[in-house]
Amino acid sequence: MIYLDNSATSFPKPLSVIKSADLAMRSSANPGRSGHSMSLAAAERIYSVRRTAADFFGVENEQNVIFTLNCTAALNMAIKGLLVPGDHVVVSTLEHNAVMRPLEKLSEKGINYTRAKVFAEDDDKTVDSFRHSINGKTKMIVCTHASNVWGIRLPIERLCALAHAYGLLFITDAAQSAGVVPINMNDGYDIICTAGHKGLYGPMGTGIMLISENIRPDTIIEGGTGSISFSLSQPDELPDRFESGTPNYPGISALGAGIEFVSKKGIDRIRKHEFELIRYLYNKLSKMDNIILYTPIPEKEHFVPILSFNIEGKHSEETAALLASSGIAVRAGLHCAPCAHEEIGTVKTGAVRISPSVFTSFNDIEKTLFSIRKIITAK
Amino acid sequence: MIYLDNSATSFPKPLSVIKSADLAMRSSANPGRSGHSMSLAAAERIYSVRRTAADFFGVENEQNVIFTLNCTAALNMAIKGLLVPGDHVVVSTLEHNAVMRPLEKLSEKGINYTRAKVFAEDDDKTVDSFRHSINGKTKMIVCTHASNVWGIRLPIERLCALAHAYGLLFITDAAQSAGVVPINMNDGYDIICTAGHKGLYGPMGTGIMLISENIRPDTIIEGGTGSISFSLSQPDELPDRFESGTPNYPGISALGAGIEFVSKKGIDRIRKHEFELIRYLYNKLSKMDNIILYTPIPEKEHFVPILSFNIEGKHSEETAALLASSGIAVRAGLHCAPCAHEEIGTVKTGAVRISPSVFTSFNDIEKTLFSIRKIITAK
Repeated sequence: MIYLDNSATSFPKPLSVIKSADLAMRSSANPGRSGHSMSLAAAERIYSVRRTAADFFGVENEQNVIFTLNCTAALNMAIKGLLVPGDHVVVSTLEHNAVMRPLEKLSEKGINYTRAKVFAEDDDKTVDSFRHSINGKTKMIVCTHASNVWGIRLPIERLCALAHAYGLLFITDAAQSAGVVPINMNDGYDIICTAGHKGLYGPMGTGIMLISENIRPDTIIEGGTGSISFSLSQPDELPDRFESGTPNYPGISALGAGIEFVSKKGIDRIRKHEFELIRYLYNKLSKMDNIILYTPIPEKEHFVPILSFNIEGKHSEETAALLASSGIAVRAGLHCAPCAHEEIGTVKTGAVRISPSVFTSFNDIEKTLFSIRKIITAK
Repeated sequence: MIYLDNSATSFPKPLSVIKSADLAMRSSANPGRSGHSMSLAAAERIYSVRRTAADFFGVENEQNVIFTLNCTAALNMAIKGLLVPGDHVVVSTLEHNAVMRPLEKLSEKGINYTRAKVFAEDDDKTVDSFRHSINGKTKMIVCTHASNVWGIRLPIERLCALAHAYGLLFITDAAQSAGVVPINMNDGYDIICTAGHKGLYGPMGTGIMLISENIRPDTIIEGGTGSISFSLSQPDELPDRFESGTPNYPGISALGAGIEFVSKKGIDRIRKHEFELIRYLYNKLSKMDNIILYTPIPEKEHFVPILSFNIEGKHSEETAALLASSGIAVRAGLHCAPCAHEEIGTVKTGAVRISPSVFTSFNDIEKTLFSIRKIITAK
């Protein structure tokens, strides 16, 4: 199997990640809940992963690193914890349903949103379109760091500055960028949400919410935290405030190994490798008949290494099924991001998405190109 | 290490559970998101675990089995998905903060609760106290199946019948009972919430919410589900409605192995074994000077195999620390259940909790008794 579905979840996982989860399964007690050595060891490991994640994302205080079930849970906690009825939000036209569905839900409570158009290679125009979407009731900008369908990267540093210039909060969904593109809390983000199981090479079932020192969102989930147990009120202290109930200890421990793996390899090297593959793929595809490409050739200032395309006359699911029968794993359909498809006009067909990881080789891409050629020829 | 902290999380995990998680880490793609064989295999495995859990809890349709981060998340989803401002709720006096903190939070929205007293060995009186707590605005009874501190088991079948007689919803927190005491959705529960990492022997980071066919709670988290992706509204269909974002595939797969382990051993055998240990422990402790026991000797109709005690003049944390230094892992303090301690008068000292698993031996209990004796003698 040639696995090119790393934007869904990265595969394979580094051996250190697998081993860390296994060790946690074999030797751990409930972290921070009891005073015995096994519980303390688990709590120390979680602390150490929190510190690793904090260093990775430029977070000073590791307590501002919150572990969640996934990026979706983190985004729900962030968005719903900060908005109140009457608020208005600006999002991009490329958001995943992890942002859109919570906002759609909040619209029942009189919280509205505007979608700002993104211009793939013109950051000035993108920033302008966000600026024009702000109104007197706008409380927050929430946007993806990079489209999970088109790989288009948003100028989030500038959008964050825009938000602050207007006194707005800024939240970003870094599910597709963390581990591939540098992102640093010191640039002023209020909240960064990301998945643990994609570019950070942790297991499925892990997500991260990074919270700045200046805000303290309301909670959507409360429960036992092992702290201030006498009180029936959710503690204010981080990370406890947002981590109720028993944490996914094996997952968090393994995520720590994943982040260490990425740090050791180096984000720049990983990105360079993946971009070489994607640009090679793009160049070859652009020379084939019957291939529809929807974006300019990806370059690293404006893209992450993800490429979606279609074969003329074929639904994306059909192309993906044919590739799957040749042992090539890609993802078709809408990728849980209908807005991103609406923007490009691919809602009906979806698109075939190829997303490499650090483990993907040129040979994998060559074989994929060979299979795509075969599908086109067989038409 | 003699591990007697299984009410926090069970340890060790069966080998089949460890292997299942490991296999999932080594071979899995994002379940149900793509059409290639790896993604389909993961989706099939999750389906199979859903079926296993459904059979275990007497759920007809496996789609009514929802996987969550933990029991706390399940309880939040259940409680907040069904209550609206003005509603009143009846809980027991023995609830965990996983129930109390969400309710306390909801009190901000005009949702109130009454705590009904539990009588350890008199089910009639317990049912009466719940009945007397119901008022014209009561919408729901939420209560623990068994106290995580005192092991006191509530007559939830009767309380469920009481709820339905008054036209109320009934939700139970089965975190401490699942895998030890039979509990069956056919008895009419609206929602059962439980942890995956205690008596079901799955990994930390897993919880289950079982929903009856007749209700469709609102959501507190929305996002991508891999289904009806074109729609910005959260799908109505189960389980998707309550499983947004990438699931904890390794955890869920391993939880399946855990439930299979319990089914194979047999709940009755597991309970019998643990009760023999706990009753033996109780008898020995009851003959020691300076030991404070708070409950009658546990028998299986009215208890789960958990025993909490104190040594006179010692804070529970001190006793637990002394036991830990002898290599015995127990949990002291309030166990995230201050109400349960308030009820018995142990808020100041907490209590030392001993909770065995199927892997605990008489020898473990003998050694624990030896260490307790040593602590008392050294006073």
